Amino acid sequence: MSLDSNAALVLFSGGQDSATCLAWALARFGRVETLGFDYGQRHRVELDLRVPLRVGFAASFPVWAERLGEDHVIDLSVLGQISDTSLTKDVAIAMQANALPNTFVPGRNLLFFTFAAAIAYRRGIKHVVAGVCETDYSGYPDCRDDTVKALQAALNLGMESRFVLHTPLMWIDKAQTWALAQDLGGKVLVELIRTSSHSCYHGARETLHDWGYGCGSCPACELRANGWEKFRAA
Amino acid sequence: MSLDSNAALVLFSGGQDSATCLAWALARFGRVETLGFDYGQRHRVELDLRVPLRVGFAASFPVWAERLGEDHVIDLSVLGQISDTSLTKDVAIAMQANALPNTFVPGRNLLFFTFAAAIAYRRGIKHVVAGVCETDYSGYPDCRDDTVKALQAALNLGMESRFVLHTPLMWIDKAQTWALAQDLGGKVLVELIRTSSHSCYHGARETLHDWGYGCGSCPACELRANGWEKFRAA
Repeated sequence: MSLDSNAALVLFSGGQDSATCLAWALARFGRVETLGFDYGQRHRVELDLRVPLRVGFAASFPVWAERLGEDHVIDLSVLGQISDTSLTKDVAIAMQANALPNTFVPGRNLLFFTFAAAIAYRRGIKHVVAGVCETDYSGYPDCRDDTVKALQAALNLGMESRFVLHTPLMWIDKAQTWALAQDLGGKVLVELIRTSSHSCYHGARETLHDWGYGCGSCPACELRANGWEKFRAA
Repeated sequence: MSLDSNAALVLFSGGQDSATCLAWALARFGRVETLGFDYGQRHRVELDLRVPLRVGFAASFPVWAERLGEDHVIDLSVLGQISDTSLTKDVAIAMQANALPNTFVPGRNLLFFTFAAAIAYRRGIKHVVAGVCETDYSGYPDCRDDTVKALQAALNLGMESRFVLHTPLMWIDKAQTWALAQDLGGKVLVELIRTSSHSCYHGARETLHDWGYGCGSCPACELRANGWEKFRAA
């Protein structure tokens, strides 16, 4: 099985992190495809913003337009069968003591990476890029660097391949993620990500704040706003 | 997250291998749940036979009846989106040179194990049992021992858990799988698996051969028939 080492598949949800990862990949690889998962997420708006983000990237950066390849959207409504509380025995209480929400799908990012690798295999793509991150710690062990590296080994054994899983945001915070976008595409890219990516848990798109759209009070908006302030102050 | 070390989740498709694994788990653990995946498999009959197999096990072995817990069936029709030839670029030709069929879903067993671990997590189950096997080599690298062991590490890191993935058939052939069934439940179990499990690629259930139902000429029937002959001759 030969994989194109000049090609990347980006796990692209439409949020700030994955939009920055898409730019990171477009700056490095000659063919970049994107992958989204539709699993009935609370903020469906995030998924809807994937297309204008891609269009914006291509319109603003002619070199990237040539590199930007197909978009894949996989229906993962099956996740609802696993997050369903009907599956949960008494042990679920222990999980909530863990500070993980009850709808938490254990190992969700393991599934995302495994589906991504299967699609990369099909598409002959060597590099898989995802915006998982330990820094703004989410409580999810499937975002950790150890997990991603162990999974790369398992995927390569299981598919008899040599995929590389890239996580360019693993060790940087939200302010540094904005700075990375600026390095990759200057003010134009920062402005695109600020106005077209989405983080808000409530899917609020009414008000454009300094740091982008959102309700301004959910944990995702707070994280994004704080990162933006720190980036602007630097 | 505490997992019940006396509980197992068996990947139970309704074939000879997974039926033997179910017996293996019922002989060892105090609570045994089963998991099936519905992904529009060619031989849907296999999935349909899961229920009578469970009923037969419980009716024939009172101790097992007490141990046999819930059955879970997860809709994995999403696999069709990945095996879809529309995803396949020119590289698919190389895959066929690999002796893997074009509808091959790369890393399918990685997905099965990951979904199983997610459900085991939800159900507080420590042990996950699957009938993957290197011996009657299928060409699928995701059935190999190295893959399963690497994946166990990745799953445990990603879910912050201590699951154990058991593969009791990894190093035995089909004749030894029949012998294992005899050790676990004598002639009664062998007869149950012979008449109620299913392997045939074509889903044929018209003729009961010595070795069970099936068309008798597809690779799965040949493998099963040869294993049965070798077992009977031993």
